[in-house]
Amino acid sequence: MIEEKIIEILKSKSGYVSGEEISDHLRLSRQALWKHIQELRDSGYDIVAVPHLGYQLVQLPDRLFPQEIGSGLETKFIGKKIHYQEKVSSTMDLALNLGLQGASEGTVIVTESQSKGRGRLGRNWISPKYKGIYFSVILRPKISPLQASLLTILCAVGLCEAIKENAQIEPQIKWPNDLLINQKKIAGILTELNAEMDEVRFVNIGIGLNVNTEKKALISSATSLKEELGKEVNRVELLKAILRRIETNYLLFRENRRKEIIEKWREYNTTLGKRVKILVRNQHLEGQAVDIDLDGALLVRKDSGVVQKISSGDIILCR
Amino acid sequence: MIEEKIIEILKSKSGYVSGEEISDHLRLSRQALWKHIQELRDSGYDIVAVPHLGYQLVQLPDRLFPQEIGSGLETKFIGKKIHYQEKVSSTMDLALNLGLQGASEGTVIVTESQSKGRGRLGRNWISPKYKGIYFSVILRPKISPLQASLLTILCAVGLCEAIKENAQIEPQIKWPNDLLINQKKIAGILTELNAEMDEVRFVNIGIGLNVNTEKKALISSATSLKEELGKEVNRVELLKAILRRIETNYLLFRENRRKEIIEKWREYNTTLGKRVKILVRNQHLEGQAVDIDLDGALLVRKDSGVVQKISSGDIILCR
Repeated sequence: MIEEKIIEILKSKSGYVSGEEISDHLRLSRQALWKHIQELRDSGYDIVAVPHLGYQLVQLPDRLFPQEIGSGLETKFIGKKIHYQEKVSSTMDLALNLGLQGASEGTVIVTESQSKGRGRLGRNWISPKYKGIYFSVILRPKISPLQASLLTILCAVGLCEAIKENAQIEPQIKWPNDLLINQKKIAGILTELNAEMDEVRFVNIGIGLNVNTEKKALISSATSLKEELGKEVNRVELLKAILRRIETNYLLFRENRRKEIIEKWREYNTTLGKRVKILVRNQHLEGQAVDIDLDGALLVRKDSGVVQKISSGDIILCR
Repeated sequence: MIEEKIIEILKSKSGYVSGEEISDHLRLSRQALWKHIQELRDSGYDIVAVPHLGYQLVQLPDRLFPQEIGSGLETKFIGKKIHYQEKVSSTMDLALNLGLQGASEGTVIVTESQSKGRGRLGRNWISPKYKGIYFSVILRPKISPLQASLLTILCAVGLCEAIKENAQIEPQIKWPNDLLINQKKIAGILTELNAEMDEVRFVNIGIGLNVNTEKKALISSATSLKEELGKEVNRVELLKAILRRIETNYLLFRENRRKEIIEKWREYNTTLGKRVKILVRNQHLEGQAVDIDLDGALLVRKDSGVVQKISSGDIILCR
């Protein structure tokens, strides 16, 4: 807490701040202040100390610290509580425990690296340290489990909007949960439910986004923003934009303005109009992806002319 | 384990079994045997000891002990593992923990009383000690969460079949999850999911059945088998029948023979053909309950003629 306050003071001034001023303000001894400055430096804050002038914050660390994400976030509830751990098995494991313990809606779990990052159906999500944005958010919508697919859809839209706004590049959405740039995967979304048949208790949305990941750490079907843009992206600012955009779209969902979400989704999608092959629990299906419905399900017109509703599955885009 | 074996030996003989015979068979001292006999008596087994003759099992206890339920159960997987606790908060709490820990399909959690027995949407299920059958079963079907409603339906059918077979009285099913006798509630079913959007990880089915509950312990809208039949029902035998019947119907579900489940459900149902009022998350709806579909959803024809599909909700039967 004191370290957060020191950072606040340093951020509020453009030049040097005297140690005396900080010490007086926070009622610290000069020695205690020095110890906190050292700890901040160890966390990655670049703080210069000059005798007789004081301290200056030269550079923020490339870390997804809660105080950095929370600073100027201006959301209503998403990210009001942020749990940060440098390394976790999966943010979804923590989110499940927190959800069961009654964590409030909008609680975010963020990490710098995951040893067992999860994709859909138990697949792996490679999560190299300090390179990506790996987080989960706990939502508590008053919906039946049958309506939860649209949460994946609205998070995909929020992610696209944030990336477009923040990194000036436009991803495409491959139904149901992948974001692509130049046909390569840049992000994935995992949606997990804890529910009665009548009502969801909570939904955890897990997002893995390759931000500054180097090519050598990526599989051939994946890419990162850095690879596509040729430069690094500030992860803190991007995550803040993502949380804001997810909240905006989630509020549309809560206000039952689902059509607006679907309309935005259509703009980013790369699935509709294409011929697709779909694998759903050992069943194969082929046809034209014609639309998604208000529940977020994909409508596929088979060669027989029959339109089938697909709520989840792996799809291959044929052209 | 030794006590289970003593019971097995006593059950296998119609008359007295000498202490020597049991001691030799189980390699126990006579004193150790005597101690185990005392413990069995404390658990409720009525065992008579006569000098020079030996021991005789006169009566089994009115307890849902795993060894009693498991004895001659003859199911494939439901009830192969039984967790028993004399008193729990809710069997659903234990089932969730066991499910998350990877408990195998068919694991049953049974208790004699619940301090916080749960109904749908956080409602209470009154669970007086030794009077009802309160249990949960963990299922791991390879389905999407959208297909889980039919699990409630098939358990309702299994319950009806077991009660009809075992207590010679036929309950009626009020969609989605209540069993009635003479318009009063005799049992409830609660279905909880832990799932991805693609696939359920596990489904816990919780069942509360009023068996030998006295009138004074029942609310006015509820009844028990004892109240309806005028005599007590053996809870162990009834629970065994329920587990068998649930498994039979679950196997139909797994073999995609859903129509057969729905056909049986129709026979027991008291909802179809009636005018119903439905409350779903603050939305009111009124119409004629015309059918249920293969997902277990209720089809209601509104006065406008439009048929609406209802996946869950509270219904009031109007006539």
